[in-house]
Amino acid sequence: MLAFETGHFATLWAQMARRLGLEVDLVPGDWRRGADPAVAEERLAADSDHAIKAVLVVHNETSTGVTSRVPQIRAALDRTRHPALLLVDTISSLGSIDYRHDEWGVDVTIGCSQKGLMLPPGFGLNAVSDRALRAAASAGLPRSYWAWEPVIAANADGLWPYTPPTNLLYGAREATRLLLDEGLDAVFARHARHAEATRRAVSAWGLELLCQVPEEHSASLTAVLLPEGHDERKLRTLVLDRCNLSLGGGLGMLAGRVFRIGHLGDLNDPTLLGALSGIELGLRLAGVPHRPGGVSAALEHLAETA
Amino acid sequence: MLAFETGHFATLWAQMARRLGLEVDLVPGDWRRGADPAVAEERLAADSDHAIKAVLVVHNETSTGVTSRVPQIRAALDRTRHPALLLVDTISSLGSIDYRHDEWGVDVTIGCSQKGLMLPPGFGLNAVSDRALRAAASAGLPRSYWAWEPVIAANADGLWPYTPPTNLLYGAREATRLLLDEGLDAVFARHARHAEATRRAVSAWGLELLCQVPEEHSASLTAVLLPEGHDERKLRTLVLDRCNLSLGGGLGMLAGRVFRIGHLGDLNDPTLLGALSGIELGLRLAGVPHRPGGVSAALEHLAETA
Amino acid sequence: MLAFETGHFATLWAQMARRLGLEVDLVPGDWRRGADPAVAEERLAADSDHAIKAVLVVHNETSTGVTSRVPQIRAALDRTRHPALLLVDTISSLGSIDYRHDEWGVDVTIGCSQKGLMLPPGFGLNAVSDRALRAAASAGLPRSYWAWEPVIAANADGLWPYTPPTNLLYGAREATRLLLDEGLDAVFARHARHAEATRRAVSAWGLELLCQVPEEHSASLTAVLLPEGHDERKLRTLVLDRCNLSLGGGLGMLAGRVFRIGHLGDLNDPTLLGALSGIELGLRLAGVPHRPGGVSAALEHLAETA
Amino acid sequence: MLAFETGHFATLWAQMARRLGLEVDLVPGDWRRGADPAVAEERLAADSDHAIKAVLVVHNETSTGVTSRVPQIRAALDRTRHPALLLVDTISSLGSIDYRHDEWGVDVTIGCSQKGLMLPPGFGLNAVSDRALRAAASAGLPRSYWAWEPVIAANADGLWPYTPPTNLLYGAREATRLLLDEGLDAVFARHARHAEATRRAVSAWGLELLCQVPEEHSASLTAVLLPEGHDERKLRTLVLDRCNLSLGGGLGMLAGRVFRIGHLGDLNDPTLLGALSGIELGLRLAGVPHRPGGVSAALEHLAETA
Repeated sequence: MLAFETGHFATLWAQMARRLGLEVDLVPGDWRRGADPAVAEERLAADSDHAIKAVLVVHNETSTGVTSRVPQIRAALDRTRHPALLLVDTISSLGSIDYRHDEWGVDVTIGCSQKGLMLPPGFGLNAVSDRALRAAASAGLPRSYWAWEPVIAANADGLWPYTPPTNLLYGAREATRLLLDEGLDAVFARHARHAEATRRAVSAWGLELLCQVPEEHSASLTAVLLPEGHDERKLRTLVLDRCNLSLGGGLGMLAGRVFRIGHLGDLNDPTLLGALSGIELGLRLAGVPHRPGGVSAALEHLAETA
Repeated sequence: MLAFETGHFATLWAQMARRLGLEVDLVPGDWRRGADPAVAEERLAADSDHAIKAVLVVHNETSTGVTSRVPQIRAALDRTRHPALLLVDTISSLGSIDYRHDEWGVDVTIGCSQKGLMLPPGFGLNAVSDRALRAAASAGLPRSYWAWEPVIAANADGLWPYTPPTNLLYGAREATRLLLDEGLDAVFARHARHAEATRRAVSAWGLELLCQVPEEHSASLTAVLLPEGHDERKLRTLVLDRCNLSLGGGLGMLAGRVFRIGHLGDLNDPTLLGALSGIELGLRLAGVPHRPGGVSAALEHLAETA
Repeated sequence: MLAFETGHFATLWAQMARRLGLEVDLVPGDWRRGADPAVAEERLAADSDHAIKAVLVVHNETSTGVTSRVPQIRAALDRTRHPALLLVDTISSLGSIDYRHDEWGVDVTIGCSQKGLMLPPGFGLNAVSDRALRAAASAGLPRSYWAWEPVIAANADGLWPYTPPTNLLYGAREATRLLLDEGLDAVFARHARHAEATRRAVSAWGLELLCQVPEEHSASLTAVLLPEGHDERKLRTLVLDRCNLSLGGGLGMLAGRVFRIGHLGDLNDPTLLGALSGIELGLRLAGVPHRPGGVSAALEHLAETA
Repeated sequence: MLAFETGHFATLWAQMARRLGLEVDLVPGDWRRGADPAVAEERLAADSDHAIKAVLVVHNETSTGVTSRVPQIRAALDRTRHPALLLVDTISSLGSIDYRHDEWGVDVTIGCSQKGLMLPPGFGLNAVSDRALRAAASAGLPRSYWAWEPVIAANADGLWPYTPPTNLLYGAREATRLLLDEGLDAVFARHARHAEATRRAVSAWGLELLCQVPEEHSASLTAVLLPEGHDERKLRTLVLDRCNLSLGGGLGMLAGRVFRIGHLGDLNDPTLLGALSGIELGLRLAGVPHRPGGVSAALEHLAETA
């Protein structure tokens, strides 16, 4: 399997795959950029005997706020005429960032209930291509709970092989209704606009974004580097205690260095600005060197684009 | 009854009393200041035959954001040795602004469920002095639902003469627990700090506070005058539609001219700053002349006093 | 005012009216039958100078499980050509038992949120005829909160003169939708069927119904007499403690002697049979002399009429 | 692995294990009795080279209402001095039927959120012995999500390797508090008493229990055979539509022949009797041959043992 070290969760996928005995070629990365289509193309072109069975991309890295460009990875597969399956993790992009399973020729899409669908954690979602189903049918790795066949068979009658989280299915129906009523394009535009406002706040504070590639900035969350010598855990604890506002922390090798601002799901302008206000208060109280005016910069952007 | 035209609700009380056949001396006012203790003292002193049976003060005028100084009205009664009962409406101050029924010698305090107690509307509260109970016993005005005696009699067994809102009584128990856990002094200080931050935002915007007496600024809500030619209804509709944020409108003679920012109940720094952000956005989108920077000024005050 | 001593709440209305200074001719009663149309007609016929300004009937006495026949009271007014207003309390019948304000020529109908509308307590409802509005306009009794005019005036714009229980209005919209989706005739038939099943249980137990007039049996609740020497409070406490089932107690002069089984609102067959089961268990555990088989008799009726 | 064909879920476990490539010796059964300790002892005694690595028992078969006697399986392992691990599924017994992981020497206990813990589906629970942990460390079957080590490692800091269902953990805390407040012995006795009442109802109806071994009757659910020619699906649909009461259906080879009555979790006497009433109504309406009186028989037992 070809994968890209784009962050904590991409690394976790590689670990999980290796734990299952799979061979993973994890393209090294600095967690500040997405999966590199050029590298993908190079590896695929070099794999003339098609040892690579699958390419795994995390669409939106929850640990870094970087969105990989899946269509360009698809293009690399197409240009090299490589038959590897394309697997995409959309955990923190589904319902928040434009994504197209069919149009982009993805074979397995992995989603979940607890991010853009605005539900509690409790179910995962797979969209699976015919090619992936055929591959599963002939695959040798033992599996049971994770096997698709019994699920697909039971689903034909509206059932599930095991106890399903019925409560969350009702929730998903309502969440889908909310998203479709607003219109998916409007939902994606809303998150993109809030993400830009957030980045303007970060820039006004004089802090550094973790993501270094402008076209890979995530619309669902923004990760911010703290200056050397300042621990994000102190900032987050302070903001949680004083503002009842829960920021994301640094995961894996980013622990201590990065905090993350989520702006997915049910969010509007004053909620975002309230959250940014809590962060600006926290930066000040935690003694993190920064310039004031982040909230103003975000508000300015939201007003201009209202 | 002596009352003071401090705002919409004081005027409403006078109307209601008159509708019941009571004679009300309503001291005229411009709705920008509280009940004037000097005027109270003058009227009481002049009432040598004690025709005034009660003095009614609205502690915190929900329509204006002005808090009358009840202890000084009490002092006026004391200095003139006038036996009138002191009646106080604490609808929007109870649980948000310091208030002392016993210590201030109030005879009837009127409160409710739906403001500082953070509950849905559904019950009113009375604290009643022995003098008021004796006055009620001999009063000639017919009353039934509003009679205290059957309530007090039934309460002795933990009951109520009619169907009580049991659900809200459970809610009141929880609300009281929340307030006492935080500590009433801390609750009052929290609202006072949020009120000051709100006024700094208003001042930074270059808008005018309705309340003209600094020591009468309300800690539970702030009313803001819009410049001539700008209608608060347009601003509020816009803010509600775009930000899902419901501002108070101008009541009675303030309709069209004043909008009101509530900062009572369950509120913390980012929630207040989010609300002020929504207003700053709204002012801009509604084309109301103002300077930017209101949210920044509020944030600055909150940071300084954190 | 002409009223009928049909139970605790009719008596309470008379007390309330008298407390307001009104003269009430309360036709004596034993709380086991409804308002007697023949007596009504006799009193009205005798009142040649129309001193009676209003006739008050409690449609369904919550304390007794007796439903008065309002159309026959109306007929008594019509036959005597008496101009008195007809006032009807539908507290425990509205939405549970057929009732027709316009068709029956009622002038003031009084309802509430917390019974057949399946909501928490928190609002009252009035339907008011033009005649009643005109009477109110010229009536001398001082009133303020209870005055209809300000409410009607404010309602014209969708508003309310005071703080309305908005939460309950949303609830009422949903409750109304539920009732209309089921169909009012179906709702009334459901309660009538459950009431008959309940009476069959009572009869099988060998206990006595409080209501003595078959055509006045209430469809929304059933009151049951306990044998001499057995206190309903003991039974109810036991049933509450063991079964988490809250029965109504004896009100006013029925205290200790009568318990009440509510079967209004959201109720289906197993819920009713579960409640009757809890009562049969309680009768046995409390040592109340009775025959077993009440639940079976109710179940038999429900099966026959399913 | 040695397993016992005690019902649908035991069979499912065997299928799942085989799908993972494990060899399973599934002792045949008729789904009307639990795992046979004598057979277990015989197989274990014959396995002199310890090819059997684990013995799997479903403590309470959700599909049949049969509770296997785990301590006697343990005794068979002990008497044969066989080192196989003992694995027990407590899905529908945990928190409803007495069970002792340590005292009974179980190596792996499997539980869940959605039965006796009275929560929505969403998490599984494992209790794991040191021997099982050591076995896992040396086991060759590839696993990732199901691996214990990362979970145990993360739990040391109160964390989880993946996104945990935080909402259900709060629920579990409350559920545990409810169970411990009532007292586990009282909880188990409550379910045993309700199970006996249910069996008396079934017996009074003249229907047959699926479970044929008196000491293996389940305290958490009861499965009932319908007479030949009557389909449980018709009965269940009817009861659901008319009574809003959801019965369990026949699973696997019992489809069409058996319905199941759950009596676990939050249940009291009138709720059980209400459910039995709905079934008795349904039997009648579905034309299933039976004698009336099931509810009466259950009520009689509950009264006797109150």
